[in-house]
Amino acid sequence: MVDFPHSQLLEPSTGAAGNASRPVGMNGAESLLRTLVGSGVEVCFANPGTSEMHFVSALDRVDGMRAVLVLFEGVATGAADGYARMTGKPAVTLLHLGPGLGNGLANLHNARKAQVPVVNIIGDHATTHQRFEAPLTSNVAAFAGTVSHWVHSSRGSATVAADAARAVQAARTAPGQIASLILPADTAWRPAERIASPLPITGPAPVSELAIAQSAAALRSGEACALLLRGDALLGRGLAAAGRIAAATGARLICDTFAPRIERGRGRVAVERLPYRPGPAIAFLQGTKSLILVGTQAPVAFFAYPGQPSELTPPGCQPMVLAHPHEDGAAALEALAEAIGAPQQRPISTSRPAAPDFPVDGTLDPDAVMRVVAHCLPEGAIISDESLTAGFACYPRFDLAAPHDYLQLSGGAIGGGLPLATGAAIACPGRKVISLEGDGSAMYTLQALWTQARERTDTITVIFANRSYKVLNEELKGVGAGEAGPKVLSMLDLHDPALNWVKLAEGMGVEARRVDRVRDLTDALRSAINGHGPHLIEAVVS
Amino acid sequence: MVDFPHSQLLEPSTGAAGNASRPVGMNGAESLLRTLVGSGVEVCFANPGTSEMHFVSALDRVDGMRAVLVLFEGVATGAADGYARMTGKPAVTLLHLGPGLGNGLANLHNARKAQVPVVNIIGDHATTHQRFEAPLTSNVAAFAGTVSHWVHSSRGSATVAADAARAVQAARTAPGQIASLILPADTAWRPAERIASPLPITGPAPVSELAIAQSAAALRSGEACALLLRGDALLGRGLAAAGRIAAATGARLICDTFAPRIERGRGRVAVERLPYRPGPAIAFLQGTKSLILVGTQAPVAFFAYPGQPSELTPPGCQPMVLAHPHEDGAAALEALAEAIGAPQQRPISTSRPAAPDFPVDGTLDPDAVMRVVAHCLPEGAIISDESLTAGFACYPRFDLAAPHDYLQLSGGAIGGGLPLATGAAIACPGRKVISLEGDGSAMYTLQALWTQARERTDTITVIFANRSYKVLNEELKGVGAGEAGPKVLSMLDLHDPALNWVKLAEGMGVEARRVDRVRDLTDALRSAINGHGPHLIEAVVS
Repeated sequence: MVDFPHSQLLEPSTGAAGNASRPVGMNGAESLLRTLVGSGVEVCFANPGTSEMHFVSALDRVDGMRAVLVLFEGVATGAADGYARMTGKPAVTLLHLGPGLGNGLANLHNARKAQVPVVNIIGDHATTHQRFEAPLTSNVAAFAGTVSHWVHSSRGSATVAADAARAVQAARTAPGQIASLILPADTAWRPAERIASPLPITGPAPVSELAIAQSAAALRSGEACALLLRGDALLGRGLAAAGRIAAATGARLICDTFAPRIERGRGRVAVERLPYRPGPAIAFLQGTKSLILVGTQAPVAFFAYPGQPSELTPPGCQPMVLAHPHEDGAAALEALAEAIGAPQQRPISTSRPAAPDFPVDGTLDPDAVMRVVAHCLPEGAIISDESLTAGFACYPRFDLAAPHDYLQLSGGAIGGGLPLATGAAIACPGRKVISLEGDGSAMYTLQALWTQARERTDTITVIFANRSYKVLNEELKGVGAGEAGPKVLSMLDLHDPALNWVKLAEGMGVEARRVDRVRDLTDALRSAINGHGPHLIEAVVS
Repeated sequence: MVDFPHSQLLEPSTGAAGNASRPVGMNGAESLLRTLVGSGVEVCFANPGTSEMHFVSALDRVDGMRAVLVLFEGVATGAADGYARMTGKPAVTLLHLGPGLGNGLANLHNARKAQVPVVNIIGDHATTHQRFEAPLTSNVAAFAGTVSHWVHSSRGSATVAADAARAVQAARTAPGQIASLILPADTAWRPAERIASPLPITGPAPVSELAIAQSAAALRSGEACALLLRGDALLGRGLAAAGRIAAATGARLICDTFAPRIERGRGRVAVERLPYRPGPAIAFLQGTKSLILVGTQAPVAFFAYPGQPSELTPPGCQPMVLAHPHEDGAAALEALAEAIGAPQQRPISTSRPAAPDFPVDGTLDPDAVMRVVAHCLPEGAIISDESLTAGFACYPRFDLAAPHDYLQLSGGAIGGGLPLATGAAIACPGRKVISLEGDGSAMYTLQALWTQARERTDTITVIFANRSYKVLNEELKGVGAGEAGPKVLSMLDLHDPALNWVKLAEGMGVEARRVDRVRDLTDALRSAINGHGPHLIEAVVS
């Protein structure tokens, strides 16, 4: 959020009230920045305005903070989410008053639901200026409260550093929280004394012996069990332990429909995905006697539909909590594996199984696109999947792809995908990040492409160009809203005019190509993977 | 905000709980829509999701509501602002849960500060579904509360119509309010009995005789007076009465720096604009003994700066309220003109004064662009000015342009300009709408161009392509944040990569051209004015 011009006018102030031009000493903004760096925060996704100029200015005086400019706040917040998913650490967003924060709320909602750490620094009017009804005056704390676990407005420059340390601590409280620190302009520009030391972090809580014993008893009972996994349970140690349990007991391994991050691909433990729709989800779980929850809750429908249940646990199935989201799910799974005497898993095979089959040529449909991407996927890639209609049926296509991380839209607020990919790329230089995007969904935060070009991220965006809000065509039937007339259809159709994603990408400095055949997609994708910097491929699908 | 696919699964429900498929009778959504139409609401700016599908479906069964699809919620809310500024009437926005509303908050902030009526319809989870932690579950009322004067969440389908009538009443309460009606999905799909009648509107309150007498006394005192105008005082009757008062007494006529709408141009009463910066603003008012406030407050600085005052009324100047914003400023000015015996103003001359001079050729700078636009401006045009750095110095250039309406960013949240223009064009078919945009500011809501192409609006966007957040370069000096180092400069610079606005526009179906000389700009502008549908001109300025 940018503001209005100001120049020519201001004499350097000399009074005690205006210490902005003092050449030595530290102001609140600098004490804040140094404290953030000292607390382990390394990246700032910024769309600053006037109130944040002292923070911006401090960037050149303080080492250790990478500043990434974005042209829309939703890119900053979504990128912070992606960064946190890949590193487990908070990035900082720099936002401008209530409306600037407003533009970032949808992706903060997603980050909140992904349970990752984010620290927002939101500039506000100087404390002396807040009682006036200036144009940008707003209740910043009210905006922040909609998505934040922790909100605080600094009241003086001497306390800003301590506030920043508390914000980082709040963000890093397991499993990860949204912390919003509001920074009135005068708390940034007035003098500060010192930085604040990092505060202790509340890591994941240990899981109770009772929960482990109960889950072990269920697994030993001989009745059908399933483990529903989320968070650390879908990564590294947790996933390996889950695999041991499944191998020893026959229990199914299932993940939430929109798990924030999953380690997938050849040689890794495969996890089934809970179907999105209520009926199929209930049918999918039918026959399960014990549903062991690890880092998640008992499953609920994404939306309610007339006459359909919200709770997806089928009759006769007993959910039981092994680990709450704030508890150590990976350790719990390891303890559970020991408790049932599961053998150590065989070392992961180093012989490469065949890559997923893929069509050699033909026109494109969503499944063909997914098969090409899965086939070409480089080892260690990161997928940001916001393909919506395309993604559900094609999820299993990636089980045999090269090992990769798979990120999804955990909070359901569209417009997460491109920013998420941008943040993941900043977090993981050297790894390829592939965004799978609907043409409708990519439009919410297309400004991310500019930041990708500016930062030369190794990001490849594949647009599923179906020229419609196809998902809504299906939802319309699902909710029983009756036959679609011409006005309804016009609300779901993006043909008039068709978006030209090649031009949109090139307009922001990203190399782009349109394809409508399998061979051309394969060619474009391989070329992008072998190249450097961001690319976009518009895949016209029927 | 769009959602996820859903198909195949749902049997038509037959129980009383699920009446969505009943072929006859009216559901809550339809009762809502019919009530809105009956209350005089004619346009809906929509970015719907699953929860809003019954409302969307009702659009084909109810006449009288024009539905305009947007690809980002900030376009919907900004367009509703523009529509309301030009018609005085509320449009409806259709938004999807907390995050969808979140994307629209910045422009609702602007609309709130512009004091215009807007009705938001925000879908939410079904009431039965709200207790579950589904991905999109959020506190919608908390999101709405940040910008709304009136918030209500419907609790049943039988009351939705009455709630809608109250929302329109709230929005139309003078001077104009933001009303947010939250519509849980089941209150839309369950049966409704009847629509609700329009409710009485609280129009502008009469101004007290005392206030008129006090202002008249000030004007008669012989001491220097100024009238600070906003709202209806800058339109038609109000402006004419202000002109009579100025002519009779020598009082200055001044408007707020960011007045929502001003009728300007040849033959109209010219109004000076209060400078943006605190020092110049105070200097500008220096010597004024009485500052008569009409529809506005005593002036305050846009931002606080170290050592600078927030209040801009100079010492020795007495602000006095003639009319509060909710009072009838136009009538107050007419009464004041009578009270001081101001002669009726001469009829506006029908002889055309010369158009503003303009440069014949040369390279472009912001002033040259403004002069060309002012020179070429067609009669009855609407200007949406979000040019920021360019706009201030060039404001007087339009005093001699053809009569037009001039809209500004009243709430200071960048990203208002293109949506505002889109809504104004929907409100005023047959009039040309010209957006003056910074390249940085246009990026916040560039998705508006797609809706312009879809609706074939007569909108012309002129981008001042300076490839920087130039305003922030100036603010950096203004706030005394010290010398700019390389990181600071990189936060303010948009050269790397330069945005290509021709491609961005064409990517959304808008005809576009880049110019860097006066002659080419003039040519491009005339061609766009003589044509139909949306155009964009990227003016490369130094």
